[in-house]
Amino acid sequence: MSIYEEQARRAWEAAAALRRAMPDVKSSAIRAMGARLRSRQADVLEANKQDVADARKEGLSEAKIDRLRLDEKRVAEMVRGLEVVAGLPDPVGRAVDERVGPSGIRVRRVRVPLGVILMIFESRPNVTAEAAALCVRSSNAVLLRGGSEAARSNRMIGACLQGALAQEGLPAEAIQMVEGGHEGVDELLRQEKYISVVIPRGGEGLIRSVAEKSRIPVIKHYKGNCHVFVDAEANEAMAASVVPNAKVQRPATCNAAEKLLIHEAVAPRLLPIIARRLREAKVELRGDPAACAILPGIKPATEQDWTEEYLDLVLAIKVVKSVDEAIRHINQFGSAHTDAIITANEATARRFLNEVDSSSVMWNCSTRLADGGQYGIGAEIGISTDRIHARGPMGAEELTCLKWVVLGEGQLRQ
Amino acid sequence: MSIYEEQARRAWEAAAALRRAMPDVKSSAIRAMGARLRSRQADVLEANKQDVADARKEGLSEAKIDRLRLDEKRVAEMVRGLEVVAGLPDPVGRAVDERVGPSGIRVRRVRVPLGVILMIFESRPNVTAEAAALCVRSSNAVLLRGGSEAARSNRMIGACLQGALAQEGLPAEAIQMVEGGHEGVDELLRQEKYISVVIPRGGEGLIRSVAEKSRIPVIKHYKGNCHVFVDAEANEAMAASVVPNAKVQRPATCNAAEKLLIHEAVAPRLLPIIARRLREAKVELRGDPAACAILPGIKPATEQDWTEEYLDLVLAIKVVKSVDEAIRHINQFGSAHTDAIITANEATARRFLNEVDSSSVMWNCSTRLADGGQYGIGAEIGISTDRIHARGPMGAEELTCLKWVVLGEGQLRQ
Repeated sequence: MSIYEEQARRAWEAAAALRRAMPDVKSSAIRAMGARLRSRQADVLEANKQDVADARKEGLSEAKIDRLRLDEKRVAEMVRGLEVVAGLPDPVGRAVDERVGPSGIRVRRVRVPLGVILMIFESRPNVTAEAAALCVRSSNAVLLRGGSEAARSNRMIGACLQGALAQEGLPAEAIQMVEGGHEGVDELLRQEKYISVVIPRGGEGLIRSVAEKSRIPVIKHYKGNCHVFVDAEANEAMAASVVPNAKVQRPATCNAAEKLLIHEAVAPRLLPIIARRLREAKVELRGDPAACAILPGIKPATEQDWTEEYLDLVLAIKVVKSVDEAIRHINQFGSAHTDAIITANEATARRFLNEVDSSSVMWNCSTRLADGGQYGIGAEIGISTDRIHARGPMGAEELTCLKWVVLGEGQLRQ
Repeated sequence: MSIYEEQARRAWEAAAALRRAMPDVKSSAIRAMGARLRSRQADVLEANKQDVADARKEGLSEAKIDRLRLDEKRVAEMVRGLEVVAGLPDPVGRAVDERVGPSGIRVRRVRVPLGVILMIFESRPNVTAEAAALCVRSSNAVLLRGGSEAARSNRMIGACLQGALAQEGLPAEAIQMVEGGHEGVDELLRQEKYISVVIPRGGEGLIRSVAEKSRIPVIKHYKGNCHVFVDAEANEAMAASVVPNAKVQRPATCNAAEKLLIHEAVAPRLLPIIARRLREAKVELRGDPAACAILPGIKPATEQDWTEEYLDLVLAIKVVKSVDEAIRHINQFGSAHTDAIITANEATARRFLNEVDSSSVMWNCSTRLADGGQYGIGAEIGISTDRIHARGPMGAEELTCLKWVVLGEGQLRQ
């Protein structure tokens, strides 16, 4: 048995123990994780300082170094995130319904953990603790594979989390860091006996490679090519504030808007107003021929623009003839992440909400609100763009599944 | 664009139309499917007769020919199955919860179809109609790939189903039969833009091959290595009726029991009683050393017996020291399908139900009851042994997912 298979097997055994853990014990363990991170903050920051120094030597971009860097404020945020997860309702063991079958058996569906989750993510060591806490909340064991540039930080954070589990009588191996080269990950992707699901979170290349290699089901967190559609009956002031917010509030996130669709009836008047605000925020605009005619001097959009996720201060604009054309365009070129309509017409909004096949569909608000915290589920492990299991922000409940619990009195099949 | 990509694209467009279909229109279409099968029964049986004749020429086993064969009784069952599906509650569009986020947005989770489902199954043309009807019920388009030996039967059934859809104003291409060689299936398994999920149903080899080739998420329906555990506090009469029923009522099905675990405290007295009934039903018994000591002359079980799915009149028996050993054995060697405990002790039962990590766990009844009809969900497309999305019998609701519908009044992300 290789070290990776052994690691997966131990996680699987820890998952069996977590299934038996009481909700308040799990809450205490998650709080203890936060307490350890706080009390060992100096060690965590020191490890991170070394990771950052190495990253700088290896010439990582400043944007990447910023994602890697921890400071007291970010540690405090991590601890606060853990407090939130500790206070979330426990999804495990909840019966969602009960039926009586024709033989008289009572048939319940009950929420159960998935088992062992393999999370593969890039940089951002502050993701580590929150992801691990959500797994503990939902009684899943987790194997965490972070970016190699954050290895020291993750190792130190992992030691804190494991210490907290052990202190509360839970198996430390319910949270394990995966180290070593790519072969290790490849081998873990074959441990279908022990690992229930793989959740990759990062760039499109990482996710595609994981999905192709894995024998284990993968819940993909692909790109966010998010749209805002400004309808003919949009409130003008709302459109002029929502579009810039969706684009510029944090352009490098997957829920930032990348495309603006606007109804031809209002484009001539509204586009110049929206464009002025976007330009003030240094957004590069690209447009289809109709948009270019209204906004002279902007760059013409190419076919590729309609599918691209810029993650940057770029926005492509298309003028459409109807809500139908907007819906068709989004379903054809979008990424099933988050798409919004701005309209005062409820019937138009209903059509958009029903027919756009994305994980989040919004009426009169900013796509940047697609987020576990903003949705009131407390925290998220990522945003799924798959169409099975869970779409959109995945919180503690989305890390569970339903099993069938059948209560009989000796019933047979006739 | 190849014919297969084109087929997938047309299914994807049909799925968009199905998303807009009203529940009663879908119900009428499903009833019309049944009516067409009934009115064209002579053609269906004639096509099937030719399939059976060819299968016989090619030397298929009698068991396989029996699975392939249709007669008036089986057609009547298919029609009845469609009536049941037509009467099922429509899962699509139902809001399961609503929250208010910190910004004031209202956040609902709403049931939506998965999109396009690729079903790959072996023989049994009577599965075709019910699977298609469940997909229509849940507003999914479906590509159906049956065994080549049933090609004529499936083509004729497919023509009936498509005719019924068109008659009710729904797109005929929401149900399509996939013909041609393996390359066609391989190509469909790469159409991730158009197909949401692949559901293979058949032998382990088929499922493994699909899972390895597919770029699309697969919900696997692997084997059923089902256990009955007879506890120290089992009601003897119940144990002596449930175990034989679970084994012999229909041994070739995935929910038939393949293993008997029995507590050492009752094994010496109860095993001979259960064994006598099993032998009367011509079941071959295999045992661990303790079982062999109690039942002289039975074949010793090998290591392989504990993981094997016989699908035949064979049962392997293991004597265990405790419910803990039973739980560990099932989680280690079982297939996460269906496992039952026979006991009068509620605390013991609760431990078994909580800790056995299978899709169906049962207390005091036969594993043969693991079935959509018996569970009161009306019909099933198959029984998932995966740990994400849906475990166990998958009915209309399990062919949907939740999307987030967000209602705002101009909210921005701060």
